[in-house]
Amino acid sequence: MDSHLYYDASAAALVLLDQKALPLREKYLRCTSLDQAIEAIKDLTVRGAPAIGVSAAYAAVLSAREAASKGKDWSAFILAALDRLADARPTAVNLHWAVERMRRVMTEARAQSPVELAAVWLAEADRIREEDIKANKAMGAFGAALIDDGDCILTHCNAGTLATAGFGTALGVIRAAVAQGKRVRVIADETRPVLQGARLTAYELAKDGIDVTVACDNAAGLLMHKGMIQKIVVGADRIAANGDTANKIGTYSLAVLAKEHGIPFYIAAPFSTIDQNTPDGTAIPIEQRASEEVEQIGGIRILPEGVKALNYAFDVTPARFISGIITEQGVLRQPFGEAIAALRR
Amino acid sequence: MDSHLYYDASAAALVLLDQKALPLREKYLRCTSLDQAIEAIKDLTVRGAPAIGVSAAYAAVLSAREAASKGKDWSAFILAALDRLADARPTAVNLHWAVERMRRVMTEARAQSPVELAAVWLAEADRIREEDIKANKAMGAFGAALIDDGDCILTHCNAGTLATAGFGTALGVIRAAVAQGKRVRVIADETRPVLQGARLTAYELAKDGIDVTVACDNAAGLLMHKGMIQKIVVGADRIAANGDTANKIGTYSLAVLAKEHGIPFYIAAPFSTIDQNTPDGTAIPIEQRASEEVEQIGGIRILPEGVKALNYAFDVTPARFISGIITEQGVLRQPFGEAIAALRR
Repeated sequence: MDSHLYYDASAAALVLLDQKALPLREKYLRCTSLDQAIEAIKDLTVRGAPAIGVSAAYAAVLSAREAASKGKDWSAFILAALDRLADARPTAVNLHWAVERMRRVMTEARAQSPVELAAVWLAEADRIREEDIKANKAMGAFGAALIDDGDCILTHCNAGTLATAGFGTALGVIRAAVAQGKRVRVIADETRPVLQGARLTAYELAKDGIDVTVACDNAAGLLMHKGMIQKIVVGADRIAANGDTANKIGTYSLAVLAKEHGIPFYIAAPFSTIDQNTPDGTAIPIEQRASEEVEQIGGIRILPEGVKALNYAFDVTPARFISGIITEQGVLRQPFGEAIAALRR
Repeated sequence: MDSHLYYDASAAALVLLDQKALPLREKYLRCTSLDQAIEAIKDLTVRGAPAIGVSAAYAAVLSAREAASKGKDWSAFILAALDRLADARPTAVNLHWAVERMRRVMTEARAQSPVELAAVWLAEADRIREEDIKANKAMGAFGAALIDDGDCILTHCNAGTLATAGFGTALGVIRAAVAQGKRVRVIADETRPVLQGARLTAYELAKDGIDVTVACDNAAGLLMHKGMIQKIVVGADRIAANGDTANKIGTYSLAVLAKEHGIPFYIAAPFSTIDQNTPDGTAIPIEQRASEEVEQIGGIRILPEGVKALNYAFDVTPARFISGIITEQGVLRQPFGEAIAALRR
């Protein structure tokens, strides 16, 4: 599970386990051009805020290699490439964060050629990847302390190895709790429309031998009402400066239900997901994806002809519904604005 | 849309539009035996609490016809048939209500032969069917008064023509509001796992030219938060004496979200859905259906091998979340216990 996202230097390719094909098929996409990498981010071959950030860093390397054929326009080509990369998806801020980091390194490195820049960037992309795994393990350690022996944890979408460079954010917390010997069961919301819970979370937890059961998103209220859920842990695509958190559509409903039932509701996300430039949730752009994602399942149309579907991919959970934000620097508590402002850069 | 559930007397067949095949195919199942009718109720060829009640009444007629070959044991055969019918599905009380009504008519009629009983029962089943349509139109008139011009109404599952003998309960309210000239838009939750919203509600509203858009169940919180929903109207499978209401899984989540956002949340259901013998929601049995309904979509497995899914088909919304219960005798308001006790038998 740690080879789902890496750069094959010998072939100059970003290699991605195709998350659209899971769990039925484990196939890999080898991106050797910037366009391929952007398309892979857009079409969800790779998804998950931190994984998108790491992929974007490697995609920048691909753009530097392509720039070698652009003569003296190479640097303009690369700057345009970075803009296109940043626009691939709007909600997850890690994408912008990674692109800005590459841009800063480019400025500082003053590379004399695209080949030189590609080498500098590859080292930086590898650092981003390693830092992400390290951050997830730190989050896991902080988060595991919140989990009790015997807990049944509800999670939404996939905030695991597949959504990151490795180990996962929300699922990293669960992995760390299990590694501590705590008996933990997981209920994975299937997470319509793209079914990341049923397809990806169930896949990677089952691979690790962690007890996982899938439930329809509709069942969350009943499961909480029956006392079957002790904690909720999810990831994040962008956390505003006041703690308002954008995450996969349906997260907000879970947070409202958690509050009604007095169940702790935790976000697990690295520093790169916190956007201090976004004051609150109203400023977070919510991606609307093609309605076909809702209208069809497995290529089979489920709606009558002529009827359209809404497809907002994310929602925003106001900070007041969040019990804690698990980061690599510790668990942030209310009021989140102050806790976020106090984080080390 | 009024020929989806009827008895073909010339062929002695209960004819059902196969709701499993909609909206892709409009095909009919002709049930000529009790076993076929019970299977059609179990496998969701026909579903929706009132429609199940009407179907059960016609299924009783089929059992009386079959009893003609049982010699002097005919009446024991029929009583066993009624027990089997009542056990076909546990949550919707209309099934039990219809079976008990047929049992009472049998006692009162003192039929001397199964053929005689079949004739008496067919007349009674036709009455149940006609009464259901009449009740839905009355509900529509009472409920439409709650809808304002320009409202966008969220509904869940299918509580329409297909769920009843005709016109529908929740969708009857919408139809009546549209007939009054009110401009109304409908957002239909797709309603996993069986997708009754995407497949059935969208199908029948689009056929009637009513503006309908489908959304994933996960989107409800966001849509309410954005101010896109003015009313929520859903059906019911069983209403306890205190107003606690069992309905399709996911209804409870909507009710909690509606309260959080100050959006009126209405149940529309006929008298036959109110179970005065069930004191409150804790006494309502919740059907758990085969996990394959969640694990597969269109015959394609979406879960990894070896991972199981929960499949509770219903949940219970406590009475305190309900703004009003729209019945054929008027709109019941809090406290529902008194309002229900005051209903005319």
